[in-house]
Amino acid sequence: MLTFYSKILETAVNEIAKLPGIGRRTALRLALHLVNADPNEVETLALAITELKSSLKICKCCFAISDHDVCEICANSKRNPNIICVVQDIRDMIAIENTSQYSGVYHVLGGVISPVDGIGPAQLKLQELFHRIENNSVEEVILALPSTAEGDTTNFYIYKNCVGKTAKISLLARGVGVGEELEYINEITLGRSLLTRVSFEMQYGRVIS
Amino acid sequence: MLTFYSKILETAVNEIAKLPGIGRRTALRLALHLVNADPNEVETLALAITELKSSLKICKCCFAISDHDVCEICANSKRNPNIICVVQDIRDMIAIENTSQYSGVYHVLGGVISPVDGIGPAQLKLQELFHRIENNSVEEVILALPSTAEGDTTNFYIYKNCVGKTAKISLLARGVGVGEELEYINEITLGRSLLTRVSFEMQYGRVIS
Repeated sequence: MLTFYSKILETAVNEIAKLPGIGRRTALRLALHLVNADPNEVETLALAITELKSSLKICKCCFAISDHDVCEICANSKRNPNIICVVQDIRDMIAIENTSQYSGVYHVLGGVISPVDGIGPAQLKLQELFHRIENNSVEEVILALPSTAEGDTTNFYIYKNCVGKTAKISLLARGVGVGEELEYINEITLGRSLLTRVSFEMQYGRVIS
Repeated sequence: MLTFYSKILETAVNEIAKLPGIGRRTALRLALHLVNADPNEVETLALAITELKSSLKICKCCFAISDHDVCEICANSKRNPNIICVVQDIRDMIAIENTSQYSGVYHVLGGVISPVDGIGPAQLKLQELFHRIENNSVEEVILALPSTAEGDTTNFYIYKNCVGKTAKISLLARGVGVGEELEYINEITLGRSLLTRVSFEMQYGRVIS
């Protein structure tokens, strides 16, 4: 355990070290960087951090983090409100947004069903998803949850509750990652990519488009 | 480049990503942690960061970061003010403090002479060191700079300017690290540790003490 002779420095290091994945040595490095940094930079950082808590809202519609009551995506008239992509968290939503391949809206569950971690359907925004589907003319629900046992469980749960209430329930394609070598892919993925093979035109049309 | 649809989140991520060694993905992870964190924790972190800039001072005597005009070490009457340990920065000073083997005071240079990086003697607190040595009855100057070409250059520069003005100028011992296997040590270190070998009693006295 490092000890310091400055209370102010020690407090800052302790607070920074509470962040996930940041140890005390890294915290000290960051704190000393801030000590030597431009005062404006430090002020802006502190303000930006405070704003995260004081000003950010949760979108009433999709439960994403938002600057307003309704997020920019839900409020955007160019987005198709009848296609809903279900994600576990904001990070996955940002990842999908950054593909520039999606023009529908989202629904942020806040996690996936995981009895081991004490997360059941009630802890997630699942009822809200079902209400959205029942009360609107939703054409397609795209399940974009992680490809894990917990993700699969959640997929099945949503499917069971939504089947018949929406025209289409789809899943992200599972298969060979673009740029991946076949020899390093696990057998389940490779086997599934063979079973769910797509036409040449469809595959290259999507990648090149 | 990740894009976001929330200005507040984007600002926070951009600010956090300015910190050294933190990329945008890590910054996003930290920002989302703060969004979900306890409001008090976020407030305390922001305050601690602001305080680093607004409240920290530089010790008038040794140029270390300090809560007061004179740091706790320089102000401590139990520390011997006549032994000065010269370090490049606060981190090295904290590392030495944490050995609990030193009861003298420090002098923080703010770096080492490195013409490649445009750091000459004038950019460092060298004149201040020489004044300290001239104006006080300093018994020993311990050079605890990194064992690099730049550290060596700085050591020689200090030696040249201080020799004769203080009773003793010493260097941290270079040699085999405690717990290190001989086969993995570079030849220069191993060769030097042989040339500067110490008596059995002195070595074990120091380690066990």
